[in-house]
Amino acid sequence: MLVRALDKPKKISLKMRKNKLKQLWKEGKTAINAWLTIPSAWTAETIAHTGFDAITIDMQHGLADYQTTLSMLHAISTTDAVPLARVPWNEPATIMRLLDAGVYGLVCPMVNSREEAEAFVGACRYPPLGFRSYGPIRANVYAGDDYFENANQTVITLAMIETAQALENLEDIVTTPGLDGVYVGTIDLSISMGLAGLGDLNDKKLQNALNIIMTQINKHDCIAGIHASTPESAKKLSEQGFRLITPVNDTNLLRDAAINALEETRKWIG
Amino acid sequence: MLVRALDKPKKISLKMRKNKLKQLWKEGKTAINAWLTIPSAWTAETIAHTGFDAITIDMQHGLADYQTTLSMLHAISTTDAVPLARVPWNEPATIMRLLDAGVYGLVCPMVNSREEAEAFVGACRYPPLGFRSYGPIRANVYAGDDYFENANQTVITLAMIETAQALENLEDIVTTPGLDGVYVGTIDLSISMGLAGLGDLNDKKLQNALNIIMTQINKHDCIAGIHASTPESAKKLSEQGFRLITPVNDTNLLRDAAINALEETRKWIG
Amino acid sequence: MLVRALDKPKKISLKMRKNKLKQLWKEGKTAINAWLTIPSAWTAETIAHTGFDAITIDMQHGLADYQTTLSMLHAISTTDAVPLARVPWNEPATIMRLLDAGVYGLVCPMVNSREEAEAFVGACRYPPLGFRSYGPIRANVYAGDDYFENANQTVITLAMIETAQALENLEDIVTTPGLDGVYVGTIDLSISMGLAGLGDLNDKKLQNALNIIMTQINKHDCIAGIHASTPESAKKLSEQGFRLITPVNDTNLLRDAAINALEETRKWIG
Amino acid sequence: MLVRALDKPKKISLKMRKNKLKQLWKEGKTAINAWLTIPSAWTAETIAHTGFDAITIDMQHGLADYQTTLSMLHAISTTDAVPLARVPWNEPATIMRLLDAGVYGLVCPMVNSREEAEAFVGACRYPPLGFRSYGPIRANVYAGDDYFENANQTVITLAMIETAQALENLEDIVTTPGLDGVYVGTIDLSISMGLAGLGDLNDKKLQNALNIIMTQINKHDCIAGIHASTPESAKKLSEQGFRLITPVNDTNLLRDAAINALEETRKWIG
Amino acid sequence: MLVRALDKPKKISLKMRKNKLKQLWKEGKTAINAWLTIPSAWTAETIAHTGFDAITIDMQHGLADYQTTLSMLHAISTTDAVPLARVPWNEPATIMRLLDAGVYGLVCPMVNSREEAEAFVGACRYPPLGFRSYGPIRANVYAGDDYFENANQTVITLAMIETAQALENLEDIVTTPGLDGVYVGTIDLSISMGLAGLGDLNDKKLQNALNIIMTQINKHDCIAGIHASTPESAKKLSEQGFRLITPVNDTNLLRDAAINALEETRKWIG
Amino acid sequence: MLVRALDKPKKISLKMRKNKLKQLWKEGKTAINAWLTIPSAWTAETIAHTGFDAITIDMQHGLADYQTTLSMLHAISTTDAVPLARVPWNEPATIMRLLDAGVYGLVCPMVNSREEAEAFVGACRYPPLGFRSYGPIRANVYAGDDYFENANQTVITLAMIETAQALENLEDIVTTPGLDGVYVGTIDLSISMGLAGLGDLNDKKLQNALNIIMTQINKHDCIAGIHASTPESAKKLSEQGFRLITPVNDTNLLRDAAINALEETRKWIG
Repeated sequence: MLVRALDKPKKISLKMRKNKLKQLWKEGKTAINAWLTIPSAWTAETIAHTGFDAITIDMQHGLADYQTTLSMLHAISTTDAVPLARVPWNEPATIMRLLDAGVYGLVCPMVNSREEAEAFVGACRYPPLGFRSYGPIRANVYAGDDYFENANQTVITLAMIETAQALENLEDIVTTPGLDGVYVGTIDLSISMGLAGLGDLNDKKLQNALNIIMTQINKHDCIAGIHASTPESAKKLSEQGFRLITPVNDTNLLRDAAINALEETRKWIG
Repeated sequence: MLVRALDKPKKISLKMRKNKLKQLWKEGKTAINAWLTIPSAWTAETIAHTGFDAITIDMQHGLADYQTTLSMLHAISTTDAVPLARVPWNEPATIMRLLDAGVYGLVCPMVNSREEAEAFVGACRYPPLGFRSYGPIRANVYAGDDYFENANQTVITLAMIETAQALENLEDIVTTPGLDGVYVGTIDLSISMGLAGLGDLNDKKLQNALNIIMTQINKHDCIAGIHASTPESAKKLSEQGFRLITPVNDTNLLRDAAINALEETRKWIG
Repeated sequence: MLVRALDKPKKISLKMRKNKLKQLWKEGKTAINAWLTIPSAWTAETIAHTGFDAITIDMQHGLADYQTTLSMLHAISTTDAVPLARVPWNEPATIMRLLDAGVYGLVCPMVNSREEAEAFVGACRYPPLGFRSYGPIRANVYAGDDYFENANQTVITLAMIETAQALENLEDIVTTPGLDGVYVGTIDLSISMGLAGLGDLNDKKLQNALNIIMTQINKHDCIAGIHASTPESAKKLSEQGFRLITPVNDTNLLRDAAINALEETRKWIG
Repeated sequence: MLVRALDKPKKISLKMRKNKLKQLWKEGKTAINAWLTIPSAWTAETIAHTGFDAITIDMQHGLADYQTTLSMLHAISTTDAVPLARVPWNEPATIMRLLDAGVYGLVCPMVNSREEAEAFVGACRYPPLGFRSYGPIRANVYAGDDYFENANQTVITLAMIETAQALENLEDIVTTPGLDGVYVGTIDLSISMGLAGLGDLNDKKLQNALNIIMTQINKHDCIAGIHASTPESAKKLSEQGFRLITPVNDTNLLRDAAINALEETRKWIG
Repeated sequence: MLVRALDKPKKISLKMRKNKLKQLWKEGKTAINAWLTIPSAWTAETIAHTGFDAITIDMQHGLADYQTTLSMLHAISTTDAVPLARVPWNEPATIMRLLDAGVYGLVCPMVNSREEAEAFVGACRYPPLGFRSYGPIRANVYAGDDYFENANQTVITLAMIETAQALENLEDIVTTPGLDGVYVGTIDLSISMGLAGLGDLNDKKLQNALNIIMTQINKHDCIAGIHASTPESAKKLSEQGFRLITPVNDTNLLRDAAINALEETRKWIG
Repeated sequence: MLVRALDKPKKISLKMRKNKLKQLWKEGKTAINAWLTIPSAWTAETIAHTGFDAITIDMQHGLADYQTTLSMLHAISTTDAVPLARVPWNEPATIMRLLDAGVYGLVCPMVNSREEAEAFVGACRYPPLGFRSYGPIRANVYAGDDYFENANQTVITLAMIETAQALENLEDIVTTPGLDGVYVGTIDLSISMGLAGLGDLNDKKLQNALNIIMTQINKHDCIAGIHASTPESAKKLSEQGFRLITPVNDTNLLRDAAINALEETRKWIG
């Protein structure tokens, strides 16, 4: 018996795991997302078990590289939270490796033009929709043996809108075939627009930009995601139509909680 | 030129880094300690930078092994927080390796008798006080080239009192030469005593045990450490004479903060 | 708000995950187990997804240490295969750390006397049944928030019978309170008995030893586990009463398959 | 004495290690290759010791990143199997780092044009043949101190032909100066061509494509590599002129063997 | 309380850590730099503690990838040596991730044109000077909470001049806005120029190239860095105006010292 | 086909690799050993390639744990230097795991009595000579498939003599069946004896102790190893009869070389 290098391994499961986010959105719901920057499978597992709809590993500004991200995907996959990742840049190598590792959606930073959007989506989709290369090694295990047949319809692609240039090219970007939507990077957007605050949602110019984005999103029936800094803003953003809202960043959660605890304790026993 | 395997390397610094905890205690102050269970240098660095007096890596119930602990010690050493560790068990191999790696104090679990206390302290002290083997590879770098001469006076040794048996042998334990004090494990102690709550400080029997412990601590001029679960209890424990108080555990901080954030957000945009 | 270091974190799940092996055994079934020696979360995940009832990480003769084992537990926990581990030796440090990490059963090598059996079981059980220390950091996540209350009834403890001395002390060992059963190490047993083959089940002396063991197992209503080297022997061992049978070792599977494939190919294109 | 940062370190060995694959090909032989997707030095060492002529670490669809690949190269270098790697994409950073780490050949995915072939080869060759940067840190150790002088003649470069576009540009690609040959990606090629099966060698259109490729290979005296899924196909492919044949993929070997063993055992003791 | 994902965490320190190299250069001094190729936090810590002004982690020809580099940055940050890195290639992903991790300067290989210099600098600078994305996760901890406001003035950018083409475009390169200077790669430069020696500073053509470079550096008030192979050459290069001089490479230091020690010992006891 | 969990895998090589140290000693030669404390496969590979007869990974005072040691063994096994390790303490778990990983000799610290020597040797030898458990997973690959049959005669066991107590029990220790010899820990010995210098070989009391040791070594035809700090002392120690001499420690080599280079450079360009 010659074990095969080429064929897919023996079929075990037959029906691909659905992308729960797509189902939530179909029902008109808003998904709540956690943002992981700590390079640790344990913190990923801890947060995944608290009940978020989606968990995004941030490989751009977070501290995990590919091998650590893989171990975090194992940890997240012990729950049914949908595993997403933000790639560090619009590069096919990382995009394809993460998809092969079983992430069910990608956020791509700094997509400023139709050409860049097409490059991003192309790397995420098998032909004829794109140029993704075949080899879903862990995706086959996480999703099921029929991954290849369903991947193009399952994997979510979100382009970050976070520069003035992206705003200008917005309609070209959101109408890119195969793109599911956008994720707004409010801090980079405000820096790019030369605004004073860093992603201050009370800034009228930034709010105006969000309105422009949501108009395009609604017009073209896309999804928009965004960070929220307070429950009130989460509510407001949800009402504005954002369907993927991220209220937490693990490093900030931990740091703020530690500072609070220390300050409280120092008051009593300093 | 033959580079030497045997001799200590060239002297660079000349005066050993003090143990800040000892200085605080000399001034009658209470030190505030953070408890690390996440196996990650990044979370260790994040918490060390918030200003705790000491940081304890928990190798017993935390998830870091030796190699990860070493990387966490690097991260903690970017601040002047005093690096401590809890060993998984009373074993010379781990005790000596952590000291060689530069921790400035050790907490040893389940010290239930004078014999066990002597085994713990013996592994922490160079002869003639103990049987620690020479080779302070990273301690020499962290502390200074005169580490060997000062280590016995610098390294803190705390024996955990966490069983009914330890309570019985308390005076024998706290009077062990070279032992700096105790750390009370209230949960294990309450389990060992057959109490209902897990470390419930309102339980009179547990409170009584703490009083017995503090009587011995005061009588023999030792240090006592303990976890605190609220600011009020931190205050009360400090007033009882505990000089090392741990109000935070990183995993719990992160998990609770994530749950809170999720619950708050779900209220608004469920 | 002071986040607590001491209390258990907020309750999320309420009902502890059952130990599927105990359920299988209650139904009179034989569980099929895979043996992991490759230090890799990916191979662990791959094998866990093929459908074995249990997966044992071998930290004695396998190549994974604690940190790697933890990552393998994440990977195994993406399935409902029961995670077990063989500890490298009868030591409380490793035993307790693995249980805290969420393994649902432990195999302890070289248990040769009642005293050693009691030491092993003691480290696995919370008081009053043993002296396990409280801190089920990942077990709480894997099993549920009521882990502590149910752990003593859930965690499986298997003592390896693999020396002539253990055979002599067999009844003392298997009647140790809190011990669930034995795992027979046929190779070491045959070496210890001075037999020619390495664990050759056709050797009458070894077969005789197995019969002695199974007599005690049946008499005291325990569980016995063993490696099987062929399907026929698996069947025979199952009929003899073994309820945990291990037909595969990952390194051997891979090595043999690679050799077979290479030999077959060389025949054709050498 | 000032130890030099710039110069090459002291010479130890003087004659560069040959590339065994080139020797085999010179003798008209076909090399048998193993494909590694498990991110583990141990599985790499296990397979390298079984006798394959070459071992390819797949950094595109396999799960190892650079640091893990480096540890796998150590393991492979305990044998005389020729270490190859498939890079995740046609990028100079990864290409040069792998060569510096001592791989003796690279497979580059998705080479669809002469321009892409030149970019790939350029990154693999020192000037004036290419633009590879000097710094063969581990290659000097693996190969010998005269690595730089011989690298351009030793390192093998294989461009993957796996799209319809590549077929069109085939002659332009295979005639790229410094390119040693191609590796056919039959699955991606069949997807790109819109064929039903995934790399089904019985598909006449795919077989036709292989014929076209081999015609060019023979015409320009290049090397062609390919995966084989059965011994019969290995033989046939070898007869067609493929000189690097890969009959095994480690993950598939392991998964199939585990499934087989489980199924066989369940038949008997289910 | 909703912990914020978006805002910067609570401010702790207020004044950003200065870049000591910039201060040294302002005082007209020459900085001495160590070059790290060993992928190890321990060797990084060891060397950082010996007193070099700067420590450069070489991710091009060294063996550390991103995750290991992060651990090395922790180790270096236990001292006040300025942490620099050489990126493997001129790619925004790696550049931005290293800056977010807190390096205070980057060396970019193979910058051969104004366009490439602008791409490099653009990735290093926040708008409006460049297109760096916001998210200085560890930089905020290493440098201080006002990192964003001061980063563009603090982070050093050095383009490697190491090809004949770069020499031709030299003035265009060094006048790129936001570029602090160059680092001369003498070996690659000599290879590119077709010279016999590898970076032989006695070669007149190479020396001539250095003179051309220094003329431009002086004319445009930039910084130039370079490797030195002997104390004499260090002195000469310093006198030529180089302000960042690298006399050591960790792997070479270790290898040469080991060879020397072995040879010396063999003489006596061979 | 059921792949076997139990049997040894298919035989490939047939003749076990010799222990080169034993051969050298048989020829009356002195072996030169390198001492590794840096937890890095790369530095291990670098040093192993310089030509030492043996390489000892120090898991007591060095910084590598088991998983890192395994990767270092891969690196060392790319050469024919004999891989040794010093265990952190006299514990069967670590001893057996290292032997299974393929080390060809162990140094055990702090062996102070016959009982301790027997415990050490027992863990290193298969029955009937000891109680080592069967499972030479990597040793089979490194040494050959007949490892089990030859291990007891191949693996070297050296007990450290480094306390006054050990000196008293010296003859009892060196005559332990199965012990190959001793390794003298001069620093710990001098501390234990209350001498002023740390392992100062010019101290008459220490020299006297060495003489006592060598008398026993010669009387019982054992091997003695030791660190040497200069070529002269290496020669003298060799003449005294030491047959395993360690002139280098990697961390010290690197640190001293870095300091030298920095000091030399500062002289010129301070």
